[in-house]
Amino acid sequence: MAEAKVLSGAGLRGQVAGQTALSTVGQSGAGLTYRGYDVRELAADAQFEEVAYLLLYGELPTKAQLAAYISKLGKLRDLPQALKEVLERIPADAHPMDVMRTGCSFLGNIEPEKDFSEQHDVTDRLLAAFPAIMCYWYRFSHDGKRISCVSDEQSIGGHFLHLLHGKKPSDLHVKVMNVSLILYAEHEFNASTFTARVCASTLSDMYSCVTAAIGSLRGPLHGGANEAAMEMIERFSSPEEAVEGTLGMLARKDKIMGFGHAIYKDNDPRNEVIKGWSKKLAEEVGDTVLFPVSEAIDATMWEQKKLFPNADFYHASTYHFMGIPTKLFTPIFVCSRLTGWAAHVFEQRANNRIIRPSAEYVGVEQRKFVPIEQR
Amino acid sequence: MAEAKVLSGAGLRGQVAGQTALSTVGQSGAGLTYRGYDVRELAADAQFEEVAYLLLYGELPTKAQLAAYISKLGKLRDLPQALKEVLERIPADAHPMDVMRTGCSFLGNIEPEKDFSEQHDVTDRLLAAFPAIMCYWYRFSHDGKRISCVSDEQSIGGHFLHLLHGKKPSDLHVKVMNVSLILYAEHEFNASTFTARVCASTLSDMYSCVTAAIGSLRGPLHGGANEAAMEMIERFSSPEEAVEGTLGMLARKDKIMGFGHAIYKDNDPRNEVIKGWSKKLAEEVGDTVLFPVSEAIDATMWEQKKLFPNADFYHASTYHFMGIPTKLFTPIFVCSRLTGWAAHVFEQRANNRIIRPSAEYVGVEQRKFVPIEQR
Repeated sequence: MAEAKVLSGAGLRGQVAGQTALSTVGQSGAGLTYRGYDVRELAADAQFEEVAYLLLYGELPTKAQLAAYISKLGKLRDLPQALKEVLERIPADAHPMDVMRTGCSFLGNIEPEKDFSEQHDVTDRLLAAFPAIMCYWYRFSHDGKRISCVSDEQSIGGHFLHLLHGKKPSDLHVKVMNVSLILYAEHEFNASTFTARVCASTLSDMYSCVTAAIGSLRGPLHGGANEAAMEMIERFSSPEEAVEGTLGMLARKDKIMGFGHAIYKDNDPRNEVIKGWSKKLAEEVGDTVLFPVSEAIDATMWEQKKLFPNADFYHASTYHFMGIPTKLFTPIFVCSRLTGWAAHVFEQRANNRIIRPSAEYVGVEQRKFVPIEQR
Repeated sequence: MAEAKVLSGAGLRGQVAGQTALSTVGQSGAGLTYRGYDVRELAADAQFEEVAYLLLYGELPTKAQLAAYISKLGKLRDLPQALKEVLERIPADAHPMDVMRTGCSFLGNIEPEKDFSEQHDVTDRLLAAFPAIMCYWYRFSHDGKRISCVSDEQSIGGHFLHLLHGKKPSDLHVKVMNVSLILYAEHEFNASTFTARVCASTLSDMYSCVTAAIGSLRGPLHGGANEAAMEMIERFSSPEEAVEGTLGMLARKDKIMGFGHAIYKDNDPRNEVIKGWSKKLAEEVGDTVLFPVSEAIDATMWEQKKLFPNADFYHASTYHFMGIPTKLFTPIFVCSRLTGWAAHVFEQRANNRIIRPSAEYVGVEQRKFVPIEQR
């Protein structure tokens, strides 16, 4: 270890820890690309299932490929009875990300990835089953209802809304869920994706990698910013109050969630997209508070700190307008980011070396053991 | 990202990714130290609970502190009924590491770490409960028996053997389990520990960090080497056969598990310790095959390749002589390494920055989206 190199800065920031062909973040000319496509173009004109296919299978699908993929996913939605029984044993006050982590891990016991030739099938299974894992637990623990885990919705976003609300969602809501899932699908070597890659580098199975990634996404410094933004926005009943409240938080140096970004310096390209849809939903529900309050906070943050809203900030009102409980915001993130995680696991497996860095030792010098009688 | 630095070599090998006061691996003068103590001295004269205390609380305990710690752990061994019901739903052919991962994750739902002030209590709970998670599932799925998860054994190693075999273990076996748990407790920034630290860096909870680490340890490039070694050793019925078989594997360039190490260059300091105990157990059970076969493989690997046995190789026969099924070897590793993982999580939390490296983009250039009708 004498030759070990100390990285500048903690957290491996700005240090290249591997290669990817999946996305670029914050490079000139495009804020965020998935396999070369600007995420804004994908969000405008693609379905989430097309984007999942792009990330997982390498290229955008043809019409026939997409139809086959949607049909395949549709057949993989139901949960095994044993998994339902596990979800029924998780109380209503559990952290929903603990539920997702446990549901994923448990499924790995009964439908294991026997070898890497099954990696696509296991990923598709999780992609199809995650909405049911979330909603079966939520509806059982909160409403005492054992819901059906299948629906006739074509899209994953529509299927999720159908299971959550127990009825067919509107076309607008299906469209917005679709956009949201596209925006969150992939983001290079963020902490949860890097967790998945470290796990994959031991040649562990897909369930272990995804379970590990869920655990990282659960952290308040990573996923969960949209939930924190929602809790803040809900505290204000008018734009004036929001401005005053934001100035107060800034003065007290409170952490304000949903602004700025570790990589993007000027703006988050996902923000303009989701903000537009939040506005449309506000008009649909006749909102006169939540969206104006959000805009007031946004404007104040820019005026005072030159901080821009990131992908999470207008996601808060967006999800809220569709009747999604705040505690399910981060689990939706899981349903989307699974595609990025799995695609990174494929990459890691295809050109692997175990990820095993060194540490700088800052502990005590070597010392003689003292038997317990002499302590 | 223009300023991002490409690390020499994949897998962050030889790159310092953070600080630790917990251990040194392969530094001059001592092969492996835990908080300054040579692991060989600890294995010779300490109990595993003393070592756990050392890693988790910073110093070796006094007699009174150790007694209190052992008493605390003893009261935390039983499993909640809901967790037992989950374990009963995992089939006998599941991967035992999937069981450990799921058991840990599920417990996080019903006994969550509400804030970091609970980090020691949650760790102690897992340390006490892991033997029962492993053995309750194993005995129910394999023998159809719902075992009691408590015992009057003082030590974690003895408790594990008691639950597994349903009877009081011999003093020799308790001593050997103790040594084994000490040897596996901590090993700097190995892949599972680094996984736990990446997860911890998002400020996620302890269960997420440990669940993630279990997923990484599950990988055949990380944990599991002792299981693979066992499967190889069992194939030979005499030292002569073992020599011939080893030469054949070398000629075919088969991977031979349990030899060499990513960090240690000349020997693994843990090997001499566990080899000595394997020899003692061989004498106890009157073995004339397994230990001589192990020595023959060991000698052949050195003669032919100058490769030394690592901690895993003689662990195979050691566990086997105590009647432990091969599939439980890696879960035992979990029961031990939990102490290192958790201590690293404490360190990460105490001086945190989210671990978020960059990637080198090797994908396609930016391209225009093509609507599905035109593909």
